Amino acid sequence: MTLPKIGITLGDPGGIGPEIILKAFARLHSLPKAHYIIFGSSLVLDKEKQDLGLNLNIPPFKRQSSSSLSPLSLWEVSTPLLKEVKKGASFKANGKASFLFFEEAVKAATEGTIQALVTAPVSKKSWNMAGIRLSGHTDFLSREYPQAIMTFWSDRLKVALFSHHLPLRESLKRIKKKHLLEFFLHLNQNLKDIQSKTFNFLVAGLNPHAGEDGLLGGEEKDEIIPAIRKAQQQGVNISGPFPPDIVFRKALNCPDKIVVALYHDQGLIPFKLAAFDDGVNLTLGLPFIRTSPDHGTAFDIAGKGKANPQSMIKSIELACLLSPLF
Amino acid sequence: MTLPKIGITLGDPGGIGPEIILKAFARLHSLPKAHYIIFGSSLVLDKEKQDLGLNLNIPPFKRQSSSSLSPLSLWEVSTPLLKEVKKGASFKANGKASFLFFEEAVKAATEGTIQALVTAPVSKKSWNMAGIRLSGHTDFLSREYPQAIMTFWSDRLKVALFSHHLPLRESLKRIKKKHLLEFFLHLNQNLKDIQSKTFNFLVAGLNPHAGEDGLLGGEEKDEIIPAIRKAQQQGVNISGPFPPDIVFRKALNCPDKIVVALYHDQGLIPFKLAAFDDGVNLTLGLPFIRTSPDHGTAFDIAGKGKANPQSMIKSIELACLLSPLF
Repeated sequence: MTLPKIGITLGDPGGIGPEIILKAFARLHSLPKAHYIIFGSSLVLDKEKQDLGLNLNIPPFKRQSSSSLSPLSLWEVSTPLLKEVKKGASFKANGKASFLFFEEAVKAATEGTIQALVTAPVSKKSWNMAGIRLSGHTDFLSREYPQAIMTFWSDRLKVALFSHHLPLRESLKRIKKKHLLEFFLHLNQNLKDIQSKTFNFLVAGLNPHAGEDGLLGGEEKDEIIPAIRKAQQQGVNISGPFPPDIVFRKALNCPDKIVVALYHDQGLIPFKLAAFDDGVNLTLGLPFIRTSPDHGTAFDIAGKGKANPQSMIKSIELACLLSPLF
Repeated sequence: MTLPKIGITLGDPGGIGPEIILKAFARLHSLPKAHYIIFGSSLVLDKEKQDLGLNLNIPPFKRQSSSSLSPLSLWEVSTPLLKEVKKGASFKANGKASFLFFEEAVKAATEGTIQALVTAPVSKKSWNMAGIRLSGHTDFLSREYPQAIMTFWSDRLKVALFSHHLPLRESLKRIKKKHLLEFFLHLNQNLKDIQSKTFNFLVAGLNPHAGEDGLLGGEEKDEIIPAIRKAQQQGVNISGPFPPDIVFRKALNCPDKIVVALYHDQGLIPFKLAAFDDGVNLTLGLPFIRTSPDHGTAFDIAGKGKANPQSMIKSIELACLLSPLF
C-alpha cells in the first residue's frame, strides 16, 4: 500500500495554527498512517516548539520516493518578510507568510505531489495588510475552481452549503431549479468520487415550515421540489424540502445523512451548535481533498498554549480517510 | 399569598395534548403551587385517563373564591360536535373542540379570571376541516394582539423572533431600523413587566458574518446597528449584531441572555437543536402570560402512551414563574 501524502499549512503564524498542528503531531502514532508534510517555515515551527516545550523532530521534506519519506516532514516555504514571530494580532509579514504557505501547498496539490491538503486558519486582515485582497482560503479556491462546494463534517452532523459568502438577499436569487439541480448532481458526483459509501441528502426548505404548501413562500413549489424530483430521477438519493427547523434534528447523529442548506447561516448556525470542537470544513469540487478546522486564528488565545487541537486532528483524519491512496 | 390561576387547554383531542397534560398533573405535587384549570371536555379527559390507567380526580371548576378552589379542576367547554374521541389524525370535530377550548380560555384570560394560559398543541388541518381559517394559536393571538411577540425558552437557550410566519423574502423587507427599534423596546418592556431580572439581548446579524463591514450585505450598517444604538441610548441592555453562526453559541447556557433572531428559522433552527425536550414557546405582548410546548400534535404517537410530557411540564412551570400573582 502506498501511503498518501498529506500537506498541512501552518496558517497565520500569529494565530493558533502552529500550536494545534504541533499538538496534533505530538500524537503522531494515533493519527492515520500517511506522509505528513507541513508547508511552513522553520522559524515559526521552532518558536512554537520552544513555547510549547515540545521536542518533536521534523526533518526537511525531500522530493524522493515515498518509501524513504519520513512520516512527518517540513516543506520549507521561503518567506522573505518574516524576521520574527509576532503573535496575537494581524501583521503584514504573517499575512504574506500564511498566503505563501497556502499558495505553495495548493500548487503541490494541483500537481499531485500531495493528495490532500489540510489548512490551518489564516487572518483575512493579515492578508489584506500584505496586499492580498481575498477573504480567505475558500475565496482563493472558489476563484481557481468555481465549482468548489463547501461542506461541514462532524460526528453529529454533516452539512453542504448551496451558497455561502453572499448577502442573504443575493442568496435568495440563486434559488432556481437549474442551479439547484446542477448543485445536487455535482455534490453527489463529488462524494461518489471520493467515497464508496452512499449518502442520503436531505434538502432544507427556504421558508418557514418549508413554505407550507405555498402559504409561506413559493420557492419550494416552484424551484426546490422540481429540482429534487429531477435529481431523484437521475439516481441521486435525495429528499425534501423539509422544514428548516426540523431537518437538522432529522440528520443529527446519522452518519450517512447530509443536510443541503440553501444559504450560509441556514447551514452554519446548526453546524456550529452541534459540532462543538470537532467541526471540519471539507471543500469538494477540487482536484484534491481539502479540509480545515471550522474555527479561526483565535488571536485572543494564541501563544498561550491552551488551544484545543481537536478540530485540527479531525481535519487531518478526514483528509486521510478521503484521500485516494489510503 | 394568593395563588395564580393557570388555564391549560387540552389541545387537539386526537393528538398527544390530553396525554401530556395528564402525565404532567399525575405529578401535581412536583409542579409549582397554583390553581390549575383545564379547559376541555370530560369526554376527552375520561377516555385519556382510561387509556393511561390513571386514576386522577379532576373536579369541575366553580367560579368561587380562590381559597376554596381545588389545585386542579376542569372548566367544561361545550363541544356539541364531539361525540367520541378519535385519535391519530385530523378530524372536524376535534378541530372544532380544540378551537372552542382555546377560545374560551383566551376569554377567561382576557377577563382576568386566569392569569396565565398554557396551550397544548392543535392541528391546523383539524381547524381547517372545522372551517377555522387560522394557522394556529399564534395566528389567532397575533390578530387579536398585533404586538404579540414569539419567544422560545429552554434551560440552554432563549430566543425572541423579530418576525415569524412570513416567507423569508418578506421577512427581509421588515428589516428597517424603525421596526427593529420598536421591537427591541417592546420586547424589553414586556419582559420588565413580568420579570424583575434584567435580560441581556444579543441581536443576530442578517447576513453571513453579520455583513462583514458591508461586504456581505448592507442591512447591518444601514438598519440593524442604528436601531441597536438607539435602543441602548434608551437604556436597553442590548448588543450586536453578531455573526448569526456565532451568536447562539455565545448565548448557550447563559440564563440571562436572549438572542434576538431576525426571521423564523434563524431562531428556530438553533432553538430546536439546543432544546431537545424542554422547549417552551412564550408569547409576550398579551395582557396575560401564554406558554406552550414547542412541539405539535404528534399524531403518529398519539394514543400510544409514549408521549414525553417534559415540554408541557416546562410550559406549566414557566407560566407559573412569570404569573403576576406567584
